[in-house]
Amino acid sequence: MNERAAAFHALHRPGEPLLLPNAWDHASAAALAARGHPAIGTTSLGVAAAVGQPDGTGATRAENLDLARRLRDLPVLLTVDVEGGFSDDPAAVADYVAELAALGVVGVNLEDGRSDGSLAPPELAATKIAAVKAAVPGLFVNARTDTWWLGVPEPLDEALLRARAYREAGADGLFVPGAPDDTVGLLAAEAGRPLNVLHRPGGPGLAELGRQGVARVSTGSLLFRAALGAALEVADAVRTGGYTDLPTVPSYGWVQELTEQFGADRFR
Amino acid sequence: MNERAAAFHALHRPGEPLLLPNAWDHASAAALAARGHPAIGTTSLGVAAAVGQPDGTGATRAENLDLARRLRDLPVLLTVDVEGGFSDDPAAVADYVAELAALGVVGVNLEDGRSDGSLAPPELAATKIAAVKAAVPGLFVNARTDTWWLGVPEPLDEALLRARAYREAGADGLFVPGAPDDTVGLLAAEAGRPLNVLHRPGGPGLAELGRQGVARVSTGSLLFRAALGAALEVADAVRTGGYTDLPTVPSYGWVQELTEQFGADRFR
Repeated sequence: MNERAAAFHALHRPGEPLLLPNAWDHASAAALAARGHPAIGTTSLGVAAAVGQPDGTGATRAENLDLARRLRDLPVLLTVDVEGGFSDDPAAVADYVAELAALGVVGVNLEDGRSDGSLAPPELAATKIAAVKAAVPGLFVNARTDTWWLGVPEPLDEALLRARAYREAGADGLFVPGAPDDTVGLLAAEAGRPLNVLHRPGGPGLAELGRQGVARVSTGSLLFRAALGAALEVADAVRTGGYTDLPTVPSYGWVQELTEQFGADRFR
Repeated sequence: MNERAAAFHALHRPGEPLLLPNAWDHASAAALAARGHPAIGTTSLGVAAAVGQPDGTGATRAENLDLARRLRDLPVLLTVDVEGGFSDDPAAVADYVAELAALGVVGVNLEDGRSDGSLAPPELAATKIAAVKAAVPGLFVNARTDTWWLGVPEPLDEALLRARAYREAGADGLFVPGAPDDTVGLLAAEAGRPLNVLHRPGGPGLAELGRQGVARVSTGSLLFRAALGAALEVADAVRTGGYTDLPTVPSYGWVQELTEQFGADRFR
């Protein structure tokens, strides 16, 4: 395992969760790196919407590679949301993740939800995980199960079953978006791997999630949606003439410095 | 002149300014279109920073084409910030703008500021304008003069001199970012073309600028910077556990619908 991948693994400490904010372009990634975050993820919604594609339909396969290439020299560890790996062929998924790893990516989220709204059979999802781990052993494979988001009948039982299958296939972490707050402690205890939950505004904070044994808290599409919302709010404020409670707006110079400090050109 | 270009020209009414918000990717453009804006511009800072390039150095030549291609089917009129046209050869500038026009772009901002911080001679800037108008007569050429932003000794005199030169070369509008509030009325009266000023938070609103004869008010990089600022604020709030005065955050479903309604795939 290379040094960066090892550093990313080491950031997962059950009880003291890593806050993993999710970026969608170079500016958001560089800004989060400048804010001191040691690692960032990508948001598939943001990466897709930025180029006019719907999320969860595999349209961002090429975009992820472009983004990873652009971010490769940022002083931050990067894990990429690869949805279901953009293929049902485990070898193709492994090849794709190996391409990302060659660009310096230290982890992926690999999910069992499919673009048709069904869950992949656990055996298929596990086989993809095993193929990726065989191809890129050091890379952190965060196995995401969508039993809650896709509304299966017994989501907790199904998630626990899948947690075991994915762990046995070599997954390094378990991600359970949408898991109700009162299941988090049980999931953390049973996962046998660092547990990742999604931050929910108004939900339990980092400290509380830490007490329940969580090792990673990610923001999913929240930052991207907040960014889009702020742009619309400011446009509305200009139109109506009323500025109230607007976010702090970084200066032009700060954004330029960010790019000059961390820009894609700097390392070429 | 095609119908869309004619519609864009018609939106410029001195005294009743067009609010032109500036987008940087498909999501921001689609969201602004969904908000009812009939026309949008691009922000060169945003387009550049999104891909990790500094603004004002010509790095976004190719990005602008990609972006125009992605936005071509949005129900909104698009004008693109082409900095100085990415060349000092007027024919090359005209060819580039013609490529954009072929993608449905109805206007460009063409500036006399250069990446080395100097102003191009007015004759050169005028020759570029004339070349673009000869190649794409219907396209709205908004001639931007950077006499204030680049801090020339007598910015108002220099701007008035350039306004005449650019108008005689065929410019359809004059853009004077950084012009002090007390020069706007004079500039609007003397420009002989629709005057575009940059919105400044805390500065005069649309109605006041209208009274001074302004025809277009653009937001420059403000929406992009507000978006980035909001993402950082929310990330900070998650880290510290304190949410206060955050922007309205659009839902996941709203963003997905936006893409499904206006996405690049819809028209293929």
